Amino acid sequence: MKAEIICVGTELLLGQILNTNARFLSIQLSELGIDLYYETVVGDNKERLSNTFKTALNRSDLIIFSGGLGPTSDDITKEAISDVMDVQIKLHEESLKKIREYFKKINRNMPVNNEKQAYLPTDCFVLKNDEGTAPGCIIEKNNKIVVMLPGPPVELQTMFNRYAKPYLLKKTKDIIHSTVLKFFGIGESDLETRLSMIIEKQSNPTIALYAKPGEVSVRITAKSNNKKTAKGLIEPVEEEIRNIVGDYIYGQDEETLEEVVLKMLKEKGLKISTAESCTGGLLSEKLTGIPGASKSFYQGIITYTNDSKIALLGVKRETLEQHGAVSGKTAEEMAIGIRKKSKTDIGLSITGIAGPTGETEAKPIGLVYLGISTKHKTWSKELRLSGSRNRIRYMATMHILNELRLIL
Amino acid sequence: MKAEIICVGTELLLGQILNTNARFLSIQLSELGIDLYYETVVGDNKERLSNTFKTALNRSDLIIFSGGLGPTSDDITKEAISDVMDVQIKLHEESLKKIREYFKKINRNMPVNNEKQAYLPTDCFVLKNDEGTAPGCIIEKNNKIVVMLPGPPVELQTMFNRYAKPYLLKKTKDIIHSTVLKFFGIGESDLETRLSMIIEKQSNPTIALYAKPGEVSVRITAKSNNKKTAKGLIEPVEEEIRNIVGDYIYGQDEETLEEVVLKMLKEKGLKISTAESCTGGLLSEKLTGIPGASKSFYQGIITYTNDSKIALLGVKRETLEQHGAVSGKTAEEMAIGIRKKSKTDIGLSITGIAGPTGETEAKPIGLVYLGISTKHKTWSKELRLSGSRNRIRYMATMHILNELRLIL
Repeated sequence: MKAEIICVGTELLLGQILNTNARFLSIQLSELGIDLYYETVVGDNKERLSNTFKTALNRSDLIIFSGGLGPTSDDITKEAISDVMDVQIKLHEESLKKIREYFKKINRNMPVNNEKQAYLPTDCFVLKNDEGTAPGCIIEKNNKIVVMLPGPPVELQTMFNRYAKPYLLKKTKDIIHSTVLKFFGIGESDLETRLSMIIEKQSNPTIALYAKPGEVSVRITAKSNNKKTAKGLIEPVEEEIRNIVGDYIYGQDEETLEEVVLKMLKEKGLKISTAESCTGGLLSEKLTGIPGASKSFYQGIITYTNDSKIALLGVKRETLEQHGAVSGKTAEEMAIGIRKKSKTDIGLSITGIAGPTGETEAKPIGLVYLGISTKHKTWSKELRLSGSRNRIRYMATMHILNELRLIL
Repeated sequence: MKAEIICVGTELLLGQILNTNARFLSIQLSELGIDLYYETVVGDNKERLSNTFKTALNRSDLIIFSGGLGPTSDDITKEAISDVMDVQIKLHEESLKKIREYFKKINRNMPVNNEKQAYLPTDCFVLKNDEGTAPGCIIEKNNKIVVMLPGPPVELQTMFNRYAKPYLLKKTKDIIHSTVLKFFGIGESDLETRLSMIIEKQSNPTIALYAKPGEVSVRITAKSNNKKTAKGLIEPVEEEIRNIVGDYIYGQDEETLEEVVLKMLKEKGLKISTAESCTGGLLSEKLTGIPGASKSFYQGIITYTNDSKIALLGVKRETLEQHGAVSGKTAEEMAIGIRKKSKTDIGLSITGIAGPTGETEAKPIGLVYLGISTKHKTWSKELRLSGSRNRIRYMATMHILNELRLIL
């Protein structure tokens, strides 16, 4: 079954709100094993909405609308669709009753406008709205299924999950199951080259690569009529990928690098502390963003000056004078300093030049040193990063989290 | 000029990423006074992409693409567009040079795949990519303007602002000029009620409210054929708004609360230091995210345990035992401690319960204390916040920045 989504609302075209409905519906359709080929956003204009709908009817079997079911005169989804599909609209008494009850419940008089929301196409399947006033509906005609959902995300999601999804489930045979592998330290095109043989020979499951700043994900997606078979199709392919590039895989599905690292620390009963310069607290902020971080994260110090590095971390003045604040030696002394001061198993440090100013001929923007100190060993790593101040800070943080993962 | 946006990427149709590019471009076009009528998302499929593009060419003057400029074989935007528009693609030497330099700078070998990104339509206007490898481009043919931008949001936004926007500005007659006033400490509906008289009577400029977590913006937008007239239309309205709710305005246009605060600190020659518990470094991270922060920010300490608060900040053990770590007294001692230890003019502290666990009957999730210490005075403020761990941490940080702004 080929599907498309049409979101109706001028506020979307003006950028006043983010289109979270399209994403929610995309995920739902993917899980239902329905192929989604197009998403369109169109304003509250009957002609353009009708034309978009006609195009959709020509190429898709299932068309899902969001928005335009409100009480005001620029809410025209039901009217435009009914015209194109040549069905009548009439008052649906039960829906009107529900709308009246809704207003009674919130202690307000029902504005006359809202009566409009109870008018629905004849012979439609009514979708109740448990979170607001506008009911949705499903029309089936000439082998096309048209679903109309309200625009407010809470109303749309509840209505879809409770009433539209069970309806659509009966129409589909296949389901889709995915496993996502998350990589750090390897670029998108490099990864694709290494996996090209596997990617090319696959059709079910399919393999797709996605890049975000600093990381790449590989999604393995199988289609089948049950979850167990789908999982069985994914497993051997996942194993093959792990055999080739497993070293770069830090996690799976929704896991973040900081979550993985904290989980490993907790399992091993280890505590860490951090000393940051150029990242200014981003490392500690990322770690403490995870619930339960206090079990493994002891404390963090942000030293933004030489004096502060000396006083709080015990970095030697001659190290700063000879090598500079941005150097492997300083990173190492910062890492030792924070580890000893905090009496933790591991000390981590970051010092670098995030820009946009502060560079010298020998030390360009993006030069960053990571320091890692354990009870047995202390070492540093040089990074040469590029991009904006924010990107450099972000990448430096991701790199040290990955170093920590590797030693754990 | 009628415009539409086409976002290319199967990952969007699978719901793996949120389409923030569409929203960014919508806002930009609105500011340029260009009418946006459609947004479409289509997968990495040449036939469907070509058909979508043909439909767009029939109804719009300006078509903006995002995505599909990557190095892999399923990145096909340039190829599909060039075919439909009947233009050749050839190697653009300068872009290849830039891509090579990019890889050199990050100390990696350029994968052969990336060479593909330097192939561009002949006679196009090349849009440089300052944040990544894929250049964008603009083609003009048969009175249609086609803009191609890369998919990663940072790359797309920088490229649009620096190179595509100035190009499009020359093509429009009317310009739109906006002033954005940024509010903290007042809710959206409260603000709307107070400004309703002004909002209703305006047509040029228009006034629109936008809410983000913790803050509300009021955008005053005037349309005219020149910037000076547009500004003249905005000024009296801005003044009227400032007269009514000026106390809540912390900044203007792109300014963030942390920028405003750092600017004030710099002007007054004051230095600050921070002590954080539940926010785990978010406050220092926000402050040091601003270039030049080192002039005013001295150091930060993240104390995630009682021992750490005692050892590093000099909080008294009996304070922690009598009042608890989450208390006004502890916040005050943390603020004094960090100020004295750092020898800065101001010390800031945050301690609270960010959840999802850690609550007690007397101290619910969302209870946060801010501490502020100057040479003359030390005090604390209690907050009762709601929402997720991330939201509570974010709101606590915004509140203390606003407190700092008010005392400056």
